[in-house]
Amino acid sequence: MSLVVLGTVALDNIKTSKGHHRALLGGSAAHFCMSARLFTKVHMVGIIGEDFPKKHIRFLRSKGVDITSLISRQGKTFQWHGEYKDHDLNTAITLATEIGVLMNYRPQVAAHQSRLPNLFLANIDPDVQLRLLRLMDRPKLVGLDSMNLWIAHRKKALRLLMKMVNLFVLNDGEARQLTGETNLLKVAKALRRMGPQMVVIKKGEHGVLFYCDRFMFTFPAYPVEHVVDPTGAGDTFAGGLMGYLSKAGRVNETALRKAVLYATALASFNVEGFGMAKTATLTLPRVHARMKKLIKFIMP
Amino acid sequence: MSLVVLGTVALDNIKTSKGHHRALLGGSAAHFCMSARLFTKVHMVGIIGEDFPKKHIRFLRSKGVDITSLISRQGKTFQWHGEYKDHDLNTAITLATEIGVLMNYRPQVAAHQSRLPNLFLANIDPDVQLRLLRLMDRPKLVGLDSMNLWIAHRKKALRLLMKMVNLFVLNDGEARQLTGETNLLKVAKALRRMGPQMVVIKKGEHGVLFYCDRFMFTFPAYPVEHVVDPTGAGDTFAGGLMGYLSKAGRVNETALRKAVLYATALASFNVEGFGMAKTATLTLPRVHARMKKLIKFIMP
Repeated sequence: MSLVVLGTVALDNIKTSKGHHRALLGGSAAHFCMSARLFTKVHMVGIIGEDFPKKHIRFLRSKGVDITSLISRQGKTFQWHGEYKDHDLNTAITLATEIGVLMNYRPQVAAHQSRLPNLFLANIDPDVQLRLLRLMDRPKLVGLDSMNLWIAHRKKALRLLMKMVNLFVLNDGEARQLTGETNLLKVAKALRRMGPQMVVIKKGEHGVLFYCDRFMFTFPAYPVEHVVDPTGAGDTFAGGLMGYLSKAGRVNETALRKAVLYATALASFNVEGFGMAKTATLTLPRVHARMKKLIKFIMP
Repeated sequence: MSLVVLGTVALDNIKTSKGHHRALLGGSAAHFCMSARLFTKVHMVGIIGEDFPKKHIRFLRSKGVDITSLISRQGKTFQWHGEYKDHDLNTAITLATEIGVLMNYRPQVAAHQSRLPNLFLANIDPDVQLRLLRLMDRPKLVGLDSMNLWIAHRKKALRLLMKMVNLFVLNDGEARQLTGETNLLKVAKALRRMGPQMVVIKKGEHGVLFYCDRFMFTFPAYPVEHVVDPTGAGDTFAGGLMGYLSKAGRVNETALRKAVLYATALASFNVEGFGMAKTATLTLPRVHARMKKLIKFIMP
């Protein structure tokens, strides 16, 4: 079943020891789509400026992403300038952000899209996430992601959202920041008490913890020897997770474990290239092959 | 088949937010024994001073540990004074160490013990580890552990030892220190090139990576909500690993995966109490019950 994703569509400028790339297609919604598209039709909700390269539009269309609700406004596309140091590829250092058209963005969604059953609120201002959620017509499965900036400055909106979603995806540092707990199991339980039935804590190279009332599980990350650019790994992960669940049409333990495995495999491809260099050309058979290796790697 | 372990036997003084305990039985050999004893007969090689409490001797004997080669010398038992802060229970802060009888310790081993097939060189000065290894009569399986102090100050002896052992167990920070690599897969490969056929990198709360030429695998740690005292978790892990392999009498992929699962389950008990409070009373059925939970937790 189809899936709507709201998030940023950005031009990323990324510096690592492996190179410096400018104006790469990025943003939470774009990375999410690149992995979710492998499982289901994805409808992107976002905003771009007049400087947004036509080739990125063509690219998104060529990948089957529905961009009906990707609106274009006068002004500049959101830009992120970031850097990763070799000794800590888990941590992005933000050099600059140019908000551009994201300022005062009010999401819009086409009538037919508002009735779609699956929704993911990728990382963007929680007020914008709330607005879109209110435009939707009772979606069955709603996922949410956020980040340190919103935990610090939009806590109220974020806490309200947490009561309205089924699945909350967050990285470990941010989850600790939000709950004030250190122990990850305590963190997961505290997040669960804040609202969402399902909690997914991403631990970067250490993998992921899934927690809900009836069961929990954890998978390590797929071991990648040559990490090139981790930007968007979390969004790629979320795209695989929500994409698979949307396709499966059910949210039980078996589907969830499989969804997290897909998500883990997809995130490992993402970090192997700059921007979407690796995920853009992916096919499901290649994801399956890596999942097979992943399962061999983690099977008790 | 029986197992010989060389390591420290210590009196530990441990401070955490949960309390301050003095003169607890500790040390790498003691923690190792407390978990390996569940699988096989363990022969402890180490040294204590005249201040070593009789109750600890009785305790070790009552747990079936053979202490024929635990020698007592004039002087003080090795003491460790350490602290853990709540926000980072992975990192022990050493407040003080009193070397005592460990200074100029020359390990001894009884004739019948020198012919035993399994040997673990737990954390102690590499020169002492080399001495014991040379006293042994061609053991079939030799494991090795070390620490930052020896990597910094006894690198030559450690590198020599690495060429003489089958299995090398090290924590991730120390493994990075020794190899100069950051990426864990590169770290594992670099350690492999230094000699040992099998490399086990312990990642604390993030679990463990096993690497050898033919296969590799990783398991997350068992999630412990109330971590009381992590002292000896790595030694408890190694005791489970070597204990199970010694009992199994074979070192193939199936046995290794099972050994690492046992080791992981055992380490999780260790951190739940001060010193050996939790591991001292363990029975195999309780370890099995936790392993069952662990497998459910990590099964793809």
